[in-house]
Amino acid sequence: MIDFPGIENLTRKTSSKILMVVIDGLGGYFDNTTNKSELEDAVTPNLDKLANESACGLSIPVEHGITPGSGPGHLALFGYDPIKYQVGRGVLEALGLGLELNANQIAIRGNFAISGSDGVITDRRANRITSKVSSSLVKKLTDISVTDFKTDVQLIRDHRFLLVLTGENKVPNYYPFVSDTDPGLNGLKSLTSEPTYPETTIIANAINSFVSQSRDLLKDNHHANMILLRGISKVPSFPSMQKTYKLDPIGIAAYPMYLGLAKLTGMEIARENTNFPAELKSLKSVIKIDKHDFFFLHYKPADAAGEDGDRKAKVKALEEFDKFIPDIIDIGADVLVIAGDHSTPADLAAHSWHSVPFLINTNFTKGDGEGSFSEKAFRSGSIGLIKAKSIMMLALAHAGKLKKFGS
Amino acid sequence: MIDFPGIENLTRKTSSKILMVVIDGLGGYFDNTTNKSELEDAVTPNLDKLANESACGLSIPVEHGITPGSGPGHLALFGYDPIKYQVGRGVLEALGLGLELNANQIAIRGNFAISGSDGVITDRRANRITSKVSSSLVKKLTDISVTDFKTDVQLIRDHRFLLVLTGENKVPNYYPFVSDTDPGLNGLKSLTSEPTYPETTIIANAINSFVSQSRDLLKDNHHANMILLRGISKVPSFPSMQKTYKLDPIGIAAYPMYLGLAKLTGMEIARENTNFPAELKSLKSVIKIDKHDFFFLHYKPADAAGEDGDRKAKVKALEEFDKFIPDIIDIGADVLVIAGDHSTPADLAAHSWHSVPFLINTNFTKGDGEGSFSEKAFRSGSIGLIKAKSIMMLALAHAGKLKKFGS
Repeated sequence: MIDFPGIENLTRKTSSKILMVVIDGLGGYFDNTTNKSELEDAVTPNLDKLANESACGLSIPVEHGITPGSGPGHLALFGYDPIKYQVGRGVLEALGLGLELNANQIAIRGNFAISGSDGVITDRRANRITSKVSSSLVKKLTDISVTDFKTDVQLIRDHRFLLVLTGENKVPNYYPFVSDTDPGLNGLKSLTSEPTYPETTIIANAINSFVSQSRDLLKDNHHANMILLRGISKVPSFPSMQKTYKLDPIGIAAYPMYLGLAKLTGMEIARENTNFPAELKSLKSVIKIDKHDFFFLHYKPADAAGEDGDRKAKVKALEEFDKFIPDIIDIGADVLVIAGDHSTPADLAAHSWHSVPFLINTNFTKGDGEGSFSEKAFRSGSIGLIKAKSIMMLALAHAGKLKKFGS
Repeated sequence: MIDFPGIENLTRKTSSKILMVVIDGLGGYFDNTTNKSELEDAVTPNLDKLANESACGLSIPVEHGITPGSGPGHLALFGYDPIKYQVGRGVLEALGLGLELNANQIAIRGNFAISGSDGVITDRRANRITSKVSSSLVKKLTDISVTDFKTDVQLIRDHRFLLVLTGENKVPNYYPFVSDTDPGLNGLKSLTSEPTYPETTIIANAINSFVSQSRDLLKDNHHANMILLRGISKVPSFPSMQKTYKLDPIGIAAYPMYLGLAKLTGMEIARENTNFPAELKSLKSVIKIDKHDFFFLHYKPADAAGEDGDRKAKVKALEEFDKFIPDIIDIGADVLVIAGDHSTPADLAAHSWHSVPFLINTNFTKGDGEGSFSEKAFRSGSIGLIKAKSIMMLALAHAGKLKKFGS
């Protein structure tokens, strides 16, 4: 997975334990008046102290200028080249619902939408209808049946739904299988799904048949009279962290999508933690079990506040996280990584491409973060500016889990 | 072009405008006595102020240790991997003369040279004969005709000339077509051009016939008694900036070669500007046209002074550039990039491999260049040390022209 040929011959099983805490949307950007980032504004004495005892650096989530979604942002931190290991939108939505897809299944993201009598789409999101309205529309869609596949429709939220096609046999892994019916813009017509390979014609036929039947079922509905389908994908088969790193990893997160992403890498997952304190409690009990040696812990509030464009809330979310640091240190992992999947500057109210501070702490590391956990201070950290996918290699190295390369 | 698979699915058309100013040979190196670079010696208050409002970094033109010519130096800044997208020397010379080559044509760089009676080359540049002398030699060469191609010879300057072969049909794109006749060193004999593919045998035959006839025509000439040919190439077909970035770019430069390079990327070009003030005037009128959204502006004097080994002149050329900054800012591009195609340290009197400072300025960026536009200050810039080919990605990101990658 990491683009180091023969990495699986370098990794070795040891008793040391790695804890990777991912602060979603960790990085930010400078405020117009103060010229300080959210992290610099936040009062984070525990993180600052930790920076003084850690190897520090900045990570580029995917590539310069590229703004990642949650999928590539996390996979990179797990050491997977996010350009090589991609997950389709349908699968990500399924993971977000906590579903487990098997090799016979294809997941598809659907939108309820509105088109005029000429078929031209006027609103790809059907005025963002409420879940209450759309749940009745979802019910209509459950009546549809298509050749070669069993269909299952579930509400995601508002105008969004998930369609799962289940075949009798394993679906061969072509990517992408077929083209989207969603043209991506208002003012255009819905598209016919085209097979990308001759073998995927039956999938395109099923999709097109589903869309055609849905049109009849919805044609007189004033909330939404059509559907748009995209991200037609199956659960990908990634090399496992077990095989590649010789780790026994476990993922702990409050939101199903992050657990789903963890699962794609071969992680066991701990469900039923609705917030970070619960996650931490779960970690405390699970770390005592000898079996596991890699722990992924997910902290969501910083990203949520950043996406809302709420600078104060983002600063607060970072300060709240800081208070958990003594507890996190107490857990006693041999290697503690604190990193982010991407930046979410409050001033942009969105994910961004900016580099993200991270640290690696062990008994051996010394401080090079200039006493401040921030983008600016970590520029001069000892690790420098690296691709996020390399953080995992450094974690393994610090854990003594990488043998010498060559003689 | 950028080694990001599917980049054309991430780029989007927006109304924002990007202005990329390339200072040719921008980077320098430290003086023996002052330990300051040309940029540090130059008084550049406007650039220094801009550094305090911009995202700053250093670019590696091609690869560590690689000194680029103008071709790779510029192509990298336009986002083309300069290792993958190469331009032959013959084509570059033709572009420098302002010629437009078509798909039936092959361009070749020629030298007038001197060899002894044993055929061993004693001077590959024929004592750098003047253009006056060589123009009469060029006239002799126009008498030559070869099978399958029309020949055209033009003086470049001094001992240099351009040979263009025009076929009746499109020349298939093999690279390299055939080997050079120039052995590259004195003390060796001229080489027979060998076809690299069976299909290019007719090209090798034409080259060898041309060389053989030139020998007869020049044999008694005491200025130069032979020619050496190299860089036998046709105009390459690169993916366009229009298709890849969804930009409508225009290039403005005083020297034809830079316009030619711009043209290879699909840029429209603005000719007839003989110096930078004229270029700037041209830009001011063209930026009002809604059509264009990417503007390449070329500043030559810093490189020319560096190549001459004239440190004072290079410092002065940088100071002169600085005076244009208020005008450049006034133009009001949404994203302003100031970068260099390579370093030209005056102490080396040549292009070099050293990294080059660059900045990206928008309403959103904040200063991290420590108030000094220089190699040293930009080491701690927020962008860090990156490959030049990534600057274009960052420019697109800052312009809001890149969609999110993955979900």
